[in-house]
Amino acid sequence: MSTVYTRPLARLIEQLQRLPGVGPKTAQRLALHLLKRPDSEVQALAQALLEAKQQVGLCSVCFHLSAEPVCEVCRAPSRDEGTLCVVADSRDVIALEKTREYHGKYHVLGGLISPMEGIGPEQLHIQPLIQRVSQTAVEEVIMAISPSIEGETTTLYIAQLLKPLTKLKGAKVTRIAFGLPMGGDLEYADEVTLARALEGRRELD
Amino acid sequence: MSTVYTRPLARLIEQLQRLPGVGPKTAQRLALHLLKRPDSEVQALAQALLEAKQQVGLCSVCFHLSAEPVCEVCRAPSRDEGTLCVVADSRDVIALEKTREYHGKYHVLGGLISPMEGIGPEQLHIQPLIQRVSQTAVEEVIMAISPSIEGETTTLYIAQLLKPLTKLKGAKVTRIAFGLPMGGDLEYADEVTLARALEGRRELD
Repeated sequence: MSTVYTRPLARLIEQLQRLPGVGPKTAQRLALHLLKRPDSEVQALAQALLEAKQQVGLCSVCFHLSAEPVCEVCRAPSRDEGTLCVVADSRDVIALEKTREYHGKYHVLGGLISPMEGIGPEQLHIQPLIQRVSQTAVEEVIMAISPSIEGETTTLYIAQLLKPLTKLKGAKVTRIAFGLPMGGDLEYADEVTLARALEGRRELD
Repeated sequence: MSTVYTRPLARLIEQLQRLPGVGPKTAQRLALHLLKRPDSEVQALAQALLEAKQQVGLCSVCFHLSAEPVCEVCRAPSRDEGTLCVVADSRDVIALEKTREYHGKYHVLGGLISPMEGIGPEQLHIQPLIQRVSQTAVEEVIMAISPSIEGETTTLYIAQLLKPLTKLKGAKVTRIAFGLPMGGDLEYADEVTLARALEGRRELD
């Protein structure tokens, strides 16, 4: 099919296909679209790619994505220093920030413990978390990790490490609630979710 | 939401959102994916974008996308000079090339006549088509244009211009068949398609 795509177009389609969720058809559609756009638009995209990759690293305190050595959340004086929310990935910070309901700080682990994928605790930012909790005036550590096998393992592993520390400080370790999603239908919820919802029941006040 | 995305990440998401079919969620997913990839991969994508935009222009003969002044199809000595397939867009050339069933040459109009969008015949590559047909040994011009209102208008407009020329040469102007798609179910075909399928019936041989 050498005549199907002229070479630079073929290369662009090939590169676009490496993106998640982009197959050959979508890659072709995107590439042909871009060829029709003004030079400036394509240059802006290329530059945004290079700059994001060059400038965005990890916050040295919480390991969230940041273009500064310390991220905006960690620098914000308005955020509650006493609450620390532990998440697996930067995308979880973004999701929580979008709720506008959380005003504490974060700690991004950079993944979950997964023996299957050869990821042990030492590959995650767990040691810095322990240090952070022991060295700062944390009153509550909220574990906000998805309830998968890896998530449960990671949550329990970290909770065990934190317990002695938080006991000394009179701080607590909590985890987010699992249950029926809002708008979810009890009838169609799977059994595990329902069991967790029952288990997590609270008194009405 | 200033703390949600660090600035270079926000810019990248903004740029990705300009792509067709990419909403805020997909843009975020793509951006976070790219930040996790090696530098070399992101650079390869940025370079492919810039090079494609810089190097790919239109073939001076058929107006198909090409990195060379004359495209591969037009240069190929193996392609039948006597058959010319007229299409609206380069993506139609790509679709036809993928069938591997067509061995003639192409002519890309660069759009369709559309008074609604202010596109008249003079904005399309119709004049060069007339010249090409009059100056080369074309035996058949195949109109391969989608059967929309704009497509029909364009097909009929071009056919009228070509008729006197092809009559002189003893050449013919044809159009691709419209009918039931392969694997299509007669019961579920719309009436217009069925009518076209009936109208285009052929004797079994």
